[in-house]
Amino acid sequence: MSTHTIAIEPRQEIEAGNRRFMEAFGRGDADGVARLYTPTAQLLPAHSDFVNGTTAIQRFWQGAMDMGLKEAVLETLEVEGHGETAHEIGRYTLKTGTGEVADSGKYLVVWKQEGGVWKLHRDIWTTSRPAA
Amino acid sequence: MSTHTIAIEPRQEIEAGNRRFMEAFGRGDADGVARLYTPTAQLLPAHSDFVNGTTAIQRFWQGAMDMGLKEAVLETLEVEGHGETAHEIGRYTLKTGTGEVADSGKYLVVWKQEGGVWKLHRDIWTTSRPAA
Repeated sequence: MSTHTIAIEPRQEIEAGNRRFMEAFGRGDADGVARLYTPTAQLLPAHSDFVNGTTAIQRFWQGAMDMGLKEAVLETLEVEGHGETAHEIGRYTLKTGTGEVADSGKYLVVWKQEGGVWKLHRDIWTTSRPAA
Repeated sequence: MSTHTIAIEPRQEIEAGNRRFMEAFGRGDADGVARLYTPTAQLLPAHSDFVNGTTAIQRFWQGAMDMGLKEAVLETLEVEGHGETAHEIGRYTLKTGTGEVADSGKYLVVWKQEGGVWKLHRDIWTTSRPAA
């Protein structure tokens, strides 16, 4: 196929998506967090099988909030865009209501553009803390 | 830019890459495993910071082999190709010399084509076993 394309690295859009994630997380809005994912999104959390789709993702993040996590900090390190898809590498920090760091680590997210909006599609992260 | 492209889903090439990974792992060849990654590849293992580049990746997998892991089984569930880049979702099982399952879980790998060969570029996985 012959195509005219304008390559726009979606780093700014993805960083804006992360700001919406941090804001929704910070107000305890697991529904709002889940809506930042595509309807067919998957989480790949440790100590769990795949978490598939909006309802299960909402429940997952509600569970994290119920365990006392009040703040998520996401820092983008790398974005590579490929048309309607991109991958992002970053670091995360999860904090309690008193500002204590409950966990910190790194992540790889596959983002998809749907109707002009970049959404999380595949989301996996690992703690950088030593094994207990 | 105006380009002629033939879209080839690289699933077969990536599954072949995984077979080479399993073979190298099975013969205890951490060098051979590390050479399946791009020179600028990153692992994102749990309980560790990023592991960057061929030498550190070789050492990481040598360490896993030294801990008694003798067999890696990789099962591709999803491949999405975007030109020279692709992402893969799959399941892994790690076994000891007596065939016992030491760990099993899921992974997300970003692959890159370099000189016609698909190589692992970003590699992150999480155990699906319950927390200890």
